[in-house]
Parts: sequence; C-alpha cells; structure tokens
Amino acid sequence: MAVDRLLPTPEARDLLDLTRDVADKELLPIVDRHERAETYPEGLFATLGAAGLLSLPYPEEFGGGGQPYEVYLQVLEELAARWASVAVAVSVHSLSCYPLATFGTSEQVERWLPDMLAGDLVGGYSLSEPQAGSDAAALTCRATRVADGYEINGAKAWITHGGKADFYALFARTGEKSISCFLAPGQVDGLTFGKPEEKMGLHAVPTTSAHWDGAVLSADRLIGAEGQGLQIAFSALDSGRLGIAACATGLAQAALDAAVSYAKERTTFGKRIIDHQGLGFLLADMAAAVDSARATYVDAARRKDAGLPFSRQASVAKLVATDAAMKVTTDAVQVFGGYGYTREFPVERYMREAKIMQIFEGTNQIQRLVIARGLAR
Amino acid sequence: MAVDRLLPTPEARDLLDLTRDVADKELLPIVDRHERAETYPEGLFATLGAAGLLSLPYPEEFGGGGQPYEVYLQVLEELAARWASVAVAVSVHSLSCYPLATFGTSEQVERWLPDMLAGDLVGGYSLSEPQAGSDAAALTCRATRVADGYEINGAKAWITHGGKADFYALFARTGEKSISCFLAPGQVDGLTFGKPEEKMGLHAVPTTSAHWDGAVLSADRLIGAEGQGLQIAFSALDSGRLGIAACATGLAQAALDAAVSYAKERTTFGKRIIDHQGLGFLLADMAAAVDSARATYVDAARRKDAGLPFSRQASVAKLVATDAAMKVTTDAVQVFGGYGYTREFPVERYMREAKIMQIFEGTNQIQRLVIARGLAR
Amino acid sequence: MAVDRLLPTPEARDLLDLTRDVADKELLPIVDRHERAETYPEGLFATLGAAGLLSLPYPEEFGGGGQPYEVYLQVLEELAARWASVAVAVSVHSLSCYPLATFGTSEQVERWLPDMLAGDLVGGYSLSEPQAGSDAAALTCRATRVADGYEINGAKAWITHGGKADFYALFARTGEKSISCFLAPGQVDGLTFGKPEEKMGLHAVPTTSAHWDGAVLSADRLIGAEGQGLQIAFSALDSGRLGIAACATGLAQAALDAAVSYAKERTTFGKRIIDHQGLGFLLADMAAAVDSARATYVDAARRKDAGLPFSRQASVAKLVATDAAMKVTTDAVQVFGGYGYTREFPVERYMREAKIMQIFEGTNQIQRLVIARGLAR
Amino acid sequence: MAVDRLLPTPEARDLLDLTRDVADKELLPIVDRHERAETYPEGLFATLGAAGLLSLPYPEEFGGGGQPYEVYLQVLEELAARWASVAVAVSVHSLSCYPLATFGTSEQVERWLPDMLAGDLVGGYSLSEPQAGSDAAALTCRATRVADGYEINGAKAWITHGGKADFYALFARTGEKSISCFLAPGQVDGLTFGKPEEKMGLHAVPTTSAHWDGAVLSADRLIGAEGQGLQIAFSALDSGRLGIAACATGLAQAALDAAVSYAKERTTFGKRIIDHQGLGFLLADMAAAVDSARATYVDAARRKDAGLPFSRQASVAKLVATDAAMKVTTDAVQVFGGYGYTREFPVERYMREAKIMQIFEGTNQIQRLVIARGLAR
Repeated sequence: MAVDRLLPTPEARDLLDLTRDVADKELLPIVDRHERAETYPEGLFATLGAAGLLSLPYPEEFGGGGQPYEVYLQVLEELAARWASVAVAVSVHSLSCYPLATFGTSEQVERWLPDMLAGDLVGGYSLSEPQAGSDAAALTCRATRVADGYEINGAKAWITHGGKADFYALFARTGEKSISCFLAPGQVDGLTFGKPEEKMGLHAVPTTSAHWDGAVLSADRLIGAEGQGLQIAFSALDSGRLGIAACATGLAQAALDAAVSYAKERTTFGKRIIDHQGLGFLLADMAAAVDSARATYVDAARRKDAGLPFSRQASVAKLVATDAAMKVTTDAVQVFGGYGYTREFPVERYMREAKIMQIFEGTNQIQRLVIARGLAR
Repeated sequence: MAVDRLLPTPEARDLLDLTRDVADKELLPIVDRHERAETYPEGLFATLGAAGLLSLPYPEEFGGGGQPYEVYLQVLEELAARWASVAVAVSVHSLSCYPLATFGTSEQVERWLPDMLAGDLVGGYSLSEPQAGSDAAALTCRATRVADGYEINGAKAWITHGGKADFYALFARTGEKSISCFLAPGQVDGLTFGKPEEKMGLHAVPTTSAHWDGAVLSADRLIGAEGQGLQIAFSALDSGRLGIAACATGLAQAALDAAVSYAKERTTFGKRIIDHQGLGFLLADMAAAVDSARATYVDAARRKDAGLPFSRQASVAKLVATDAAMKVTTDAVQVFGGYGYTREFPVERYMREAKIMQIFEGTNQIQRLVIARGLAR
Repeated sequence: MAVDRLLPTPEARDLLDLTRDVADKELLPIVDRHERAETYPEGLFATLGAAGLLSLPYPEEFGGGGQPYEVYLQVLEELAARWASVAVAVSVHSLSCYPLATFGTSEQVERWLPDMLAGDLVGGYSLSEPQAGSDAAALTCRATRVADGYEINGAKAWITHGGKADFYALFARTGEKSISCFLAPGQVDGLTFGKPEEKMGLHAVPTTSAHWDGAVLSADRLIGAEGQGLQIAFSALDSGRLGIAACATGLAQAALDAAVSYAKERTTFGKRIIDHQGLGFLLADMAAAVDSARATYVDAARRKDAGLPFSRQASVAKLVATDAAMKVTTDAVQVFGGYGYTREFPVERYMREAKIMQIFEGTNQIQRLVIARGLAR
Repeated sequence: MAVDRLLPTPEARDLLDLTRDVADKELLPIVDRHERAETYPEGLFATLGAAGLLSLPYPEEFGGGGQPYEVYLQVLEELAARWASVAVAVSVHSLSCYPLATFGTSEQVERWLPDMLAGDLVGGYSLSEPQAGSDAAALTCRATRVADGYEINGAKAWITHGGKADFYALFARTGEKSISCFLAPGQVDGLTFGKPEEKMGLHAVPTTSAHWDGAVLSADRLIGAEGQGLQIAFSALDSGRLGIAACATGLAQAALDAAVSYAKERTTFGKRIIDHQGLGFLLADMAAAVDSARATYVDAARRKDAGLPFSRQASVAKLVATDAAMKVTTDAVQVFGGYGYTREFPVERYMREAKIMQIFEGTNQIQRLVIARGLAR
C-alpha cells in the first residue's frame, strides 16, 4: 500500500509515482543480493541520475529538478523504504553538491554542477576525522597553500561512498582558526582510501577512511572563501539532516508495512495476530511514530522551502525520525517473532540499518546539543 | 518568546497575533484565581465570541471565521498555553456546533448557527454516559418519539461546560440499533445536572453529569436522520480530537517555555542549570516533543483542509500530542525541582491539566484501537 | 491482596502483618480527610511510635527495632501504600535520627536517641536552602561559634514536617570550607518557620522554610566534628534515598492494586476491561515496573545490611523506583478513564504524590550524576 | 572491572571467580572468530562440562552442582557477558535436563541424568513448531503409540543446538487434548534437521528445524505421564525464562562495560566523553537498567530457591531484563558513535544478540500475557 502523502502539486505526485516505479524496478530486485554479498551496485547511480533522481532540490538551470525540499525528501523516503544504503548515498550526494551550489562562484557552478546533478559524477562528503566526529573544530587534516593550489595532508574518516565517488566535498584546515571547503576530485595522486568499514548494515555502499598524503588540489577547487569552511559545513548539515530524517522515516515505514502485512497473515490462538489487541496497539504505536516522524521532517522542509530558519527544526526532525526508526524497526522484528530474527524477512536488515541513522550527520546527542543551545540563547 | 509558526497567509498571522493579545489580556490575569478557587469565569466566553474566536473554522456566511483548520487549531493552541480549561471549552464548543453545521438542514442552520458562532450561545457535547465512555454503541439514554417531538430519559456524563452551556449536542438511543443526534437547549423541564466533578485540574469550567427525566425536545431538534447519530458523533470526534491535540500542544509549549525560562535564571554548581548538559538534553527532548506534536496535528489539519481523509491522522495527532503533553509537563516540574511542585509556578497546574488530555474525546487506548483497525483492514 | 513478599525471617513477616494492620486501622480511615483539608494528623506519629514503627532500623539497646533495612523498607512501603505523606515523614524521621545514631557520642546518643526512637520526639531534616537544593556545597546558613555554643543565621528550605517536628538534623556552615551537623531542637528563640508550601500533593504533612535569626544552640548539639557535616549528610542521604525508593514503590503498588481492581469490575464492549489485551498489557507493564522497583531497593538494602558499599545502588533504587512510581500512577489514572481524573478514586492523589518522589532527597538528575561519577572513576 | 555481586556464600564467590576465569580463557579468545565465521565451537561444551558449569542447579547426587538458582544464574550471566550464544546454549541445556530431573522416574534419572549433567550429552529443547511459537496448545507434531514405543511425525522449529545436541526434550501430541514430553536421542532413524537459520546474531550455535518422519522412540523415553506435556513444558519454561533473563543481563553488563571503558578514553570538545553530562546521564541510565535487571532476576531466583511461587516473577524478570538488554546494547553502540557500528568493537554484536532475547522462550508479548492473566485472576 502506498503511503498517503500530502503533496503540494500534481507534478509532485507524478514524481513520487515515478520514484516508486524506479525503486520497485531497479532497487527491490537486487537489494538483498548486494546487501548480503556486500557488493557495490555498479551503474545504479547512473540509472538514478538518468531518471532525474540525483538532482531534485537543485535549480533547473543547471540540470536540477527544481523541486521543493518537501518533495525531494519524500522521494528520498521512498528510496530508503526499498534500499537504505542507496537512499543514504543519494542524500550524501545531494549534500556534497550543496557547497558548490550554494557557495560556489558562477564559474565553478557552471563547470562542475551540471555533471554532478546529472549523476555523471557521484559525490561524497568528507568532514569527519578519526578523532573528530561531531567536533568539527578539532579537524587536523591540513590544506597548505602551495604554488599551484593547496596541498592536502591528513586522515579523514567515515566517508560514505569512499573510494567510489567521483568527487568529495572536503573540509580541511587552512589555518589555526580557519577551516576551508574544497571540491576534491575522487582520484588524485596522494589520495588513497582505507578498506571499507565492516558495518552492521548499509553493506552495499562502502564507508571508508581517506588518507591525504601530499595530494595537490588546484586553487579553483576552493569553495567559498578560506576560513568559511565550518559555516559551509554546518549549513550543508542542516539540509543533510533533513535527508537522514527522510531516509529514517522511509526505513520505519518499510518496517511497519512488513510488520502489518505479516500480522495480517500469521495466526495464533485462532486469530490473526494483528487482531490480538496487544499486538494491534504495538502496531498502532509504530504507525503513530512513522506518521509523526514524517510530519516533523515535512514541517522543517516547508520552512526551508519558505526561506524561513529551519536549523532547529532540522535537528528535531533528525532526532525524532531516527529514534522512531530505531524503535519501529526493533519492534517490527518483534512482530515477526523468531522469523524476524532471520534473513528470511527484511526486518532484521531494517533494524541493522536503523542504528546508523542515530549516529551519522551528527549523533542524536549532537542534535540535542544544537537544540539545547537554541533554547539557551 | 512567541512560537515560530508556519502559517499559510498573512491574515492567519494577524489572527494569531490577535489571539495572543486577547489571551494575554483576558486570560492570563485571571487564570490562577479561577483555577484555584474553582470558579467559572462568567462573561469570558462572550468576550472570546466578540473577538471572533468561537467560530473560526465555520463558514463566514453564518458568522464563522472561515479559517482553515490548520489556522484554527493554532489559535486554540495559543489559548491553551494560557488557560487549558478555556481552550478545551472552546474546542468543545466548536465540536458541539459541528453536527448542526455539517448535518443540519439549511433551516436549522440559519435558525441556530449564527448565535452559536457569535458566542451568544455556548455549547456542550453530550455523548458519554456513566457506563459508556468510549463504547458509544452501549448508550442507554433514550429518545422516544412523542406527539410533539422526542422525550429524553437517561443519564449522561462527563459534559464539559455541563449546566453552564446554552445548548448541547446530545446523542440518544432512538431504537435498538439506532442512535440519533439532537441539538438540545441548555435549560428544559426534566433536565438537571449533577454537581461538578472534583477533578485533578481544569477547575474553572465545570464537568457534570446530566439527568434527563422526561424532558421533551421538539422534533426540529433532531439533527440529521434518526439513526445517523453515531456517524455524526464519530465524524465530529475526528475534528474534536484535533482540537484536543492542539490544546495539548499549547499546554506542552507553555510548560517548555516556563522550564526554559527558569533554567536560564536558576544556577547550581556555578552555572545556569540550562548549561548543565544533563538538563539541557532534557529540555531538548521536551522541545522535540512539542515541535513534533505540533507538526503532527498541523499535518492532519492540512489534510482535513484539503478534503482528504484524516481520521487516522487525527487519532495519531491526539495520541502523540497528549502523550507529549503528559511527558513534557511532568518533566517541566522536574526542571523546577521542589519549586515546581508548588503553586508558586504554573507548571504543577500544567501537569495536572495534561493528564485529562490523554483521556477525553477517546482515551489514548481508543485512539490506538482506531489506528490498529485502520492498519488491519 | 497483600503483596507477596520475600522476607528473611518469620518475625519480619509478623512485623509486616502488624504494619498492614496498623496502617489499615490508623491511616486508611483518615487519609482522604486530611489530604483534602490539608490538615495535620495530630497524634498519629505518637501512635506509630507506640506501635514501634518509628525506630525499626535502629539498635534495640536504644529502643530501636533492630530490623535489617530490607525489612524496615518494606514496612515503609506498606505505610506509603496507604498514605504517602505519613510514610515520607516516617522516612524523614528515620533520616533525621541517622546523624545522631551514627556519628553521635555515646553521651549524645543516650541522651536523645531513646525518645526519638520511641516517637516521643519526631524529627525533620534540614539540609536544603532556597538557593541550594542539590548543591550542598553552596549552603549559606551559618553556625558561628559563640560563648555558649553556636549561633545560627540563615534560611533553610523544603523541610518536611517543618514547624511540627520536635528536632531537626540541621546542616550549617561553620567555615569557608566547613559544613557541620547539629541536632537542633524544634523550638528555640530565633527560629521561625515559613508558611507551609502549597504543594501539588502530600498535603497532610507541612513542608516549610525555616529562618534562623540568631538562635543559639548549645555546643553539645554538634554531631560529629566540625567540618564533618557534608560527610554526614551524604551518608544519611544514601539511607534516605532507600526510604524514598520504598515509599515510591508502595505508592506504585497501591496505584497498581487500585487499577487492577477497577479493571476487573468495569466492562466495555462486553468484557471486563482487564480482559482487553491492550489494557491487560498496560497493567502487566505496570506490575513489572513495581516488581522490579521493589527488587532493586531490596537488593540495595541487603547490601547495606551486609555491610557492603551501597551508595550507587541506593541512587539506582531511588531513580528506578521513583520513575516507576511516576509512570505507574499516571497509567493508573488512565486505566480509570475519566473517573481516575476525579477525587472519587485515590489514583489521582497517587499521581500527584508520585511527582515529588522524583525530586526530593536528590532529584533524579542528581542520582544520575552520582551514578555517572561512580562509572567515571 | 568485575561486577559487585551479592552472593549467599563464599563458595558461590569462588564459583563466580572460577567462571570468570574459564570464560576469560576459553570463551573470550575465540568468540569473535566463531561468531564471524558462523562456526560451531567443537569441544567447548565438553570443556564447560568438565569445569562443572553445565550442571549447576541440579542435585549433587547425580553429578549436579547443587547450587541455588540465585548462584547458577549469575554464572550464566558471566558466560553471557563473554559469549551470548554459548550462555544461551548452556541455559537451554539446563532447560532440557529439567523435565527428566523433575518429572522422570528414578530409573530414568539414574540412567541419563549423570551423563547430561557431566556435559557428555548436550541437550536441546524442542517445543516450538513453525506454526506454533508461543501457542503451545496448537502443536501438531504427533507421537503415536506403536508396539515398541512411540512413532514421531511432524515438524519442529527454532531448536537451539539443533543437529548438534545429543538429546532433545521433545514435546509432541499424543491425543486430541494431550501433549506429552519425551527425552529424544539426538540421532535416530527418521529424524533430520533443517539447515541452520540465518540469524541476525548468535551465529556460533545453530538454530534449526527438525523433521520427524516415522522415527520411533522406545516407551521409556516418555517423561512423566502421557498428557502431562504442557504442564512440564510450562514448568520448565518458568526456569528457562530466568536463564534468559540472566543471559540478557550479562549481555547488557558487557555492553555497559565496553561503553564506559570507551567513554573514559575518547575525548571530544576537550573532555573525556564520559565527563560530558549528556553522555554521563545516558551511561547512568544504562547502569540503572542493568542493576535493576539483575536485582529482578535474582529476586525471582531467590523465591524459586525458597520454594515459593515464582512464575509471575520469572515472566517479569524475562521481560524487564531483555528489554533492558535491547535498550542498553543499542545505547552502547550510540556511545561509540560510528565506531560502534563496526565490528571493530563488540557492541554491534551485543546489539544483534540482544534482539533475540526479547523473542525466544516466550516473546515479551507472551510474558505480558502471563503477567496480565495473573493479575486478572
């Protein structure tokens, strides 16, 4: 059953229909194979790019979809309901286009953005470091001015699509109090990637570290001004958190749908288990959590679309939606009983995937910190 | 600090400003006195009616405000943030207009609705009975056809504004399988009211039982067809639940605001308590709960305004917002420590008021039942 | 139905039977009257003292009951199940005997302790101050050495039994880094009490501030050494927190019992509500919370009885039991629906009483701080 | 740091020391290898048997350890803290000895029990069926009387140690209203096992289905009387649930220890993360959950040891401890941030292992049903 969405236009409805179509045809048939074998779905992002799904919130003049965030996020949600790894990678791609699209010069934008939005170039986001997850001010990877640009030295970590992406939004230290943003190519001398992290889930898209050892980026790779990096990073993260909120909601919705479907088929004590009120109430609480997670991120997105401040709302949406996803997916396994604990059904995958949502793009502790600081002002 | 609301029009923004103004001038100065003394604020509903706040979601042609539910509910929220009893009574008034406005003949509508919307006649809603709270099919109060209309016999319970209202949307049994809806006058021979319930909170507006002992209602008091009562009642409740969700959100917002304000003033261990991260995170969770409660009811309201189905979303909103209010108000008392446990600050009142929100217009167990049935279909 | 208790001896079982007897005869018949009228039950503590219930954990040689804490706390629990105000006052009395019994000289002990344990002298505990709830190091009330003892100046707050007690365990500053403990008489020139706080619950026993304005305590009123006050206070609080854990558990048990009893009588949709699985599961969760709260405080008490460290366990017990009481009492009101929100049933009282348990003798935030510090070592 | 346990005797303390020793030497060095490779640790159960750890709660006269349940369960907890698969298998072994030890004739006991307790024969428990998880009355596997005993036909499911165990406590239908218990050998003509379930965790010990296709058990394999099977099964489960409660507590303790240890090493924003109060409070809540889970199962065990009823307490302990384990392990991953999501640290394994604890030996919904029925009586 398709989610009953509140959408602003008939075009948005068509876009959602298209998304479900693409997702059902391109993602569903191969998700289990890749997630189990931990193999990368080569070519899949090109397909999504061709369908126009890698550029939705960006301006049409550069090949973007020109969609409001309210719509783009619901598309992400549908992708996540089929394949969380892919949806997260799409969200990260969008995040990695953000610095260029928002802070780039028109020359930079014209040169790189169209290919990125077309999906010919897939992007990663490289802010975290081994000793600096949420504490961006502690970054140690350095960009040193040299004759022909910047020489990069240091280690980065937790890069979604690491080693596979064609470019990275890279944040590096350009001075004691100065962090800057670069649009780095995916391959350059002096850049190597660690082996993929052995994660609990999200197996099909690698997460790696990166080691910069004297690689040189040309000066035109600097996005925005020197020292503007943290401002760019945090601004990008506000949008990125909405992407994660949407992915988490899609995952929770998929888990709910699977649980409801099973609960209507399975019988115990002579009744469908959904008709045992104890389980019915559990499913109702799951549904309430999914509905309110969606309402929360859509509300934040509508503020962004209206040009209003939305930073606090993005943190709230990320916190609420990812906590909901963790709870709903865990309970979905419960609805299936022993079967839910096996690979026979997708809910065990959903549960493993949900956990990272509470952690990346700012742990939920960081979100609480952001919200608390807003209150304390 | 005023809530940062997402509103559809500049007019809506003006209306919210007006509401805050009226609430600050007319409610805030007297709320404590009436809530402590358990006295009814005579004349207050006329004042609200004169300000146009008793008719917002109804058509302008009958004197209504012609506002979308999305806006009306946010007005309710602002009232509830100052005085929950009054906001609940406004919501119930609106609920009690619903059967007439939606199912009445044009003759009935023209005769009664304008006075009701002007606030000259304040309404109550009389569905519950002592033995039939949420189980509407078990109603025993009877309406028997007599020469000049219907004779009413039986007991009703839990009537907000009981004995004070000018009319009641009354539901009574007209046959073995037939419940009907009446627009009953507030005073009629054979109708008496019990003494007000001694409640934990919401002291300023009485809740009573009603005893119908042979009172006769003229035939034109029947709203809709005989036997259509439950359909009317449930349809009204969908809207009514949104009203409660909004009241609960307002209460939670008021508790959050009070807690944040106190936490910025009070210091322990040499810091403002809001700067102790343990308390800061508690406040952040409270803020997240308030934000997502609001987003959830606004989302449901926007569906209603768009003519889409919203019954499940109304139950979700009622469940989520009232559970949030219970948690947030309880935690707000915690933020104040011992002071919060006293009448010196309003948070102990908020906590006592929040509890009933989880109970009336369908306990949260009934909401879960409604949601579960929707899933089980 | 009596709680199925695990007790170490047949004597303990007899003591619990006696307690239930006394509580049923002396507390139950008058609790509602005093809690509603906010009147002090004169003479009641003498009755409890005569029954031996005010001295249980203290040595028999001074008139104490010589009971292990494991047993004493379960007695407290039974009292709290009937009347939380009284049980809390008993716990506080016990707490206020602690400094003398543990740190007093044998002369001091012989002089005062027997009357205190007999219940001829009822005690209060006076550590908190208006600006120093949980932050004991910030105390400003001073005890200045004078010729004939100590002159006390300053304000204290949140004194259970304030103005009614015959003596107070008083903590005051005797130097820049020195807090000391005194056994202060209940009446002395220069000591006055504020008017009782208007609390959400626990109405029958007053909580007041105290104002020390040059009152002089004789030197033999100093308990332990000068500067030993905080050590005494914290050591007393470890035991006191167990008392609150037991009170909270009794309150939760009473709420559970009331809810179960109602749920077995009330029917909706043709069944007892306890047989609707949704409600049955809610009651099961409440029962699990009560059982594990009790197990947790009994475990801590058995460690204390065995002479093992139990400070962390006391904080855990206080945290777990009082959070359980808040949740269980709130849900008990829910089980009763609208009736639960009125004074017709005791559950609304229980809910109002539960809230303070999360706050006094160290807020649950302070308990978390204590536990976290233990982990961080 | 070793858990600070309350133990009844010095011998119990020695046994716990021995257990930690064995676990550190025999389990810790190989757990990761087997759990990743999903390989069975051949010979390990013989080692545990030789150390006396497979027989603890059974009488010494048959080679048992003669330990109270209170002690046996804490041993299980220590095993689970190192390797949940193995601890669960030990608990199931104990469970599978229960029918024989409790309901067997002395001849049966003497013949089989000593080898089982010595660990020469490892046991499985076979009650569940594909269509009858928690609904034991719906069993369809049949045992038909034949000349030389019973012929068994049908399918069983979810057998821990399936295909590896030397014997099974088997429950099969001997009549329309009659279920009986058998002590079945691990290998017999007509018995085959399905391939191991692909589980989310507990990889080192297989869980399989079993297919009985005309296998014949000699008549002396019947334990208790025909028709006594459900009584035996439920009685065994009361004890088995305590075993799971202990395993879950050990898992939670291990997760807490890992998280605390990491939080003392990792620094962000210039402080150890344990010293950030937001995280400190999270750890405190985790510690409180572990402590109260342990107290709850120990309390139930002490009732069993004292010969008191403990069925409800066993269900409460299973519910409380496994919910605690799910929450604590999920939060432990959170404490590690991105690192917690990888195999680099054990917490991701703990989280995957915790989930099944909420499901097997009666889902937590079944535990609530058991508790609710007890209340409803």
